[in-house]
Amino acid sequence: MELFYAYEVDGGIARLDAEESGHCVRVLRHRAGDGISVIDGLGSMFRCRLSDDNPKGAVAEVLETFPGWGSHPYHLTLACCPTKNNERFEWFVEKATEVGVDRIVPVIGERSERKVYKTDRAVRIALSATKQSLKARIPVIDEPLSVRSFIDSLSFRQNEVSGGISAPLKLIAYCFEDDTHPRISIKDALSTSSHGMSASSFHGLSVESVPQIIVLIGPEGDFSPEEARHALDAGFIPVHLGSSRLRTETAAVTAAEAVYFHFL
Amino acid sequence: MELFYAYEVDGGIARLDAEESGHCVRVLRHRAGDGISVIDGLGSMFRCRLSDDNPKGAVAEVLETFPGWGSHPYHLTLACCPTKNNERFEWFVEKATEVGVDRIVPVIGERSERKVYKTDRAVRIALSATKQSLKARIPVIDEPLSVRSFIDSLSFRQNEVSGGISAPLKLIAYCFEDDTHPRISIKDALSTSSHGMSASSFHGLSVESVPQIIVLIGPEGDFSPEEARHALDAGFIPVHLGSSRLRTETAAVTAAEAVYFHFL
Repeated sequence: MELFYAYEVDGGIARLDAEESGHCVRVLRHRAGDGISVIDGLGSMFRCRLSDDNPKGAVAEVLETFPGWGSHPYHLTLACCPTKNNERFEWFVEKATEVGVDRIVPVIGERSERKVYKTDRAVRIALSATKQSLKARIPVIDEPLSVRSFIDSLSFRQNEVSGGISAPLKLIAYCFEDDTHPRISIKDALSTSSHGMSASSFHGLSVESVPQIIVLIGPEGDFSPEEARHALDAGFIPVHLGSSRLRTETAAVTAAEAVYFHFL
Repeated sequence: MELFYAYEVDGGIARLDAEESGHCVRVLRHRAGDGISVIDGLGSMFRCRLSDDNPKGAVAEVLETFPGWGSHPYHLTLACCPTKNNERFEWFVEKATEVGVDRIVPVIGERSERKVYKTDRAVRIALSATKQSLKARIPVIDEPLSVRSFIDSLSFRQNEVSGGISAPLKLIAYCFEDDTHPRISIKDALSTSSHGMSASSFHGLSVESVPQIIVLIGPEGDFSPEEARHALDAGFIPVHLGSSRLRTETAAVTAAEAVYFHFL
């Protein structure tokens, strides 16, 4: 099954950008009248008929809409420090998208070797992995910010939202031991949390009503003790990902897998 | 913590090959008398004192032995069809090693686009990932064989072994639906199996007495129905990995994560 991304779906008309149009018309040789499947990147899939096979701006008529297509029963934000080697972070973006993630935040830690991160390649990889794994929602890739700013932005957001959204479960994975805040496994954190982390009851609900989970993953040199303390002060639960020592990007994918299997 | 691989540990003496010796002596500038940590690749870690700092053949004296160091409470064999793009399979080897795997078997399916696979790079990647993730046992990388031969080799092995080893839990992950053999999730297959798949009771036991799990993952074009039937006839349980459509290499890592989290 081949999916095309429409940058706009409005009034029963889906519009593809130049790149998607080229792929649809030049590469796959679709012509006006052909049936194609389109996603809006926001969660809906559309069965369409191609009405204009312009290879620079194809247009399709929507025949049927499938909201929540390929969705998962949770909303996962992975905030992860970009790795020194860019390819490793891009690999994480691809794999987390395949498994299931809603928002990826490149965060810069005090001990991050990489202090600058450009999101353009990650955005393209996320789109491609979304289509490849038959999902309709493309994970949002935030612009990078510091670990501290990310933590602070959550408190700000939480104060902002009006009723109906339960507080997210916020987890931070670090490696050092801290006797005053013993870490639990991410599996136990998901199982024992009071955030309503049960699987079946959330199918088919809107994004706002599914459990919200945020996992913060540090750089190769780990978080600084001050960053960890700042996270704990802001309500993050310290977790470990089991006994294996994982690379940053493996830890981030493993966190996505832990959430995926919790809700499976 | 830096680990060196010794190709031989015998009579309290650990010997490093030319590559490991060069890394130890030339790159990290260790000298005779220095304390180093050595693994034998078979499950033991040794605290050693370097006695000969020959950069082409370093030798170290064993001071203390840690058997089962960095081990996991199961024995996992991942039989996976090599991907068309070699890098994707190598990435799987690295990530599965970090998370935890004991044996990797490149299997060639009837629908595999890649019919030939050379294991030399995978062997090096597995060694490097073992050291990086602080484990003492390097996963064995088998020479490639056909899906059918792999399935048949298991029946043969099972008949061969003498008492004491329980039969392995054999799982096959494929995508097509088969009404006569409905698939269950890999999570449920691990939880409900009668193969003694419980976590805590196996810590510290020898490899032979931990639960044996085998997962078979098909190529990009999936298994042929005949291969799947052959596996089912041989006692494989058909499983799925959840609702996400995963690439071959992502499916293989996800299977490793499912087992890892089951025993966490």
